[in-house]
Order: sequence, then C-alpha cells, then structure tokens
Amino acid sequence: MKLQEMTLKPIGRVRAEKGMFTIEIEEQYRPALAGLDGFGHIDVLWWADRSDTPEQRNITTCRKPYTHGPDTIGIFATRSPQRPNPIAVTTADVISVDQDHGIIRLSYIDAENGTPVIDIKPYHPSGERVRDVVLPPWCSHWPRWYEDSASFDWDREFTG
Amino acid sequence: MKLQEMTLKPIGRVRAEKGMFTIEIEEQYRPALAGLDGFGHIDVLWWADRSDTPEQRNITTCRKPYTHGPDTIGIFATRSPQRPNPIAVTTADVISVDQDHGIIRLSYIDAENGTPVIDIKPYHPSGERVRDVVLPPWCSHWPRWYEDSASFDWDREFTG
Repeated sequence: MKLQEMTLKPIGRVRAEKGMFTIEIEEQYRPALAGLDGFGHIDVLWWADRSDTPEQRNITTCRKPYTHGPDTIGIFATRSPQRPNPIAVTTADVISVDQDHGIIRLSYIDAENGTPVIDIKPYHPSGERVRDVVLPPWCSHWPRWYEDSASFDWDREFTG
Repeated sequence: MKLQEMTLKPIGRVRAEKGMFTIEIEEQYRPALAGLDGFGHIDVLWWADRSDTPEQRNITTCRKPYTHGPDTIGIFATRSPQRPNPIAVTTADVISVDQDHGIIRLSYIDAENGTPVIDIKPYHPSGERVRDVVLPPWCSHWPRWYEDSASFDWDREFTG
C-alpha cells in the first residue's frame, strides 16, 4: 500500500457575523456551485482550525462531556472538533446560493467566523435520512429531527 | 489570516470483501471507539484515494452525470469523489463495534477495499435527520429514506 500524503486546501470561509451565516467560496471554485440552488440543505465540511494542534489531535477519549453520558467516552462517539483529523460536518439549511459572487446564505452554522471550508455536498435523504434511528440511552431524549434542534435546551446536555 | 497546512492521517481502512463490510481502526485510535456501540448508524469520512490526482482535484463541473439532471452540473451539487478535496461522507448502518480489535462491522459502505478512513462520527438525528427536504426536480423521485435506497434502481439514474 503506497504511503499517501493527504492534504486539503480551503475552498472558502465561513462568515458568521451579526446573526448572518454565509459561506464565501473562492473564485476558482465558484463554477462548482452550479445546480446547488435546487437543494434545501447542504452538508458543509469545515476545518476545525482552533482544534488543530498536535496535542488536540492526539486526544482519543474525553471526560464526561455529556450530562447524562458515561464518565469517559471515545472521540469517535462524539462530534467534538478535537479529533485526530479535525474535520466537522454540519448539515445546514440553505437560504440562497449566489454562484456569481460565491455566496451561500445559511440559516445557521456552528462554525466560527473565518473557519476554512473544505467541501460542500448536497443533502440527499436517500443517503442521510435514517428512518429507524438507534441511540444510546444518554441521548435518546435529544430531538429526532434537525428542525427541532433550534428550540432544544442544549445547555443542559453538556457538562462543559 | 495565517496560512495553514491541513493534513490528514488515516485512522483506519475499509475492508470490503466477499459481501462483508468492515472498518479496521489502527491500534492507536481504538480507545476513541469507546461508547460508539450504542449508536445504530455512523458517518464515515473516507479519502477517495482513486480520485486523488491533480487533474481530478481541479475539476469543478461535470457533464450530465444524472439521467434526469442538467447538461452541466457543479461538483458541489454532486457527491462525486472527484472534487477539490476528495473526501466522501457515508452514513452507514452499524452491525457491531469491537473496540479491542478495532473492528466496526457495517451493513454496507460504498468505498472500495483498502480505502483510507479519516474519521468516524456518531449519527445524531438532531443534526442530520431533515424533516422538510427540498430537492431539485431531477432527483425528487429518489428515496426519501436511507433504508429505501438499497432496493432503489440506481442504475437508471446515472448516465455513466
């Protein structure tokens, strides 16, 4: 098996200012937005640059991040940005796509202003909308729909 | 804004042989699997190494990949592995997690044998299960649920 160098380049940045959430796509990648405007939701892959240190990338477990969860949990059982490869995937509600200016307006994204974006994918229910969800007991009371998350009291669920 | 080097390291490999689909996690990352076994589904991030050439990474549009789709479509409106950063995200049904041996058994994954895996995340409906899906007309007849995809006639949907 050949040893591979896996490197990423930013295709854009998150803008999160004054309650507005947008993704600005670099000029060279704007043609790649053609046809995206028909989709109601996208998956945004972003680089958690604030968690990109050798120490954070070596973390494999964390201490009780969830109020009702176990005392120790593995990073791959969380969506923490501190992980071996600090990539986050966020499903986001699309307000508009302006291909010419490379602007995707979103209802919300949980990434800070300036965060590098590495990919945009259309949300397809055939691949991602699971009917029969199974969850561990500690998060089985969490919302069963994306749309119900905005009004859920998340502060009670995290210890930090 | 600092210029960042964004590099990935494989945390494991896909094994897809004889109708069995597993992910083998490298020994150093196995503690990160703790607590994953309560989740029915995971998101697998994998490196599309067969699409990792400078030419393929420069593609921004493609010619009519979908039978009912437009003549030209942007890469960010597709889930093609040929994209600026060749990362695929697959939601997969978990059969079992063996943390000690670093083996995750899946019902299926659309990655070839030996593909590098770069991340595993739990599937949370609160973040990913969209109730009110909007799709462009050319794919609005595709399955509305993950579970219905296995029996759908995908061959008719792709021109390739």
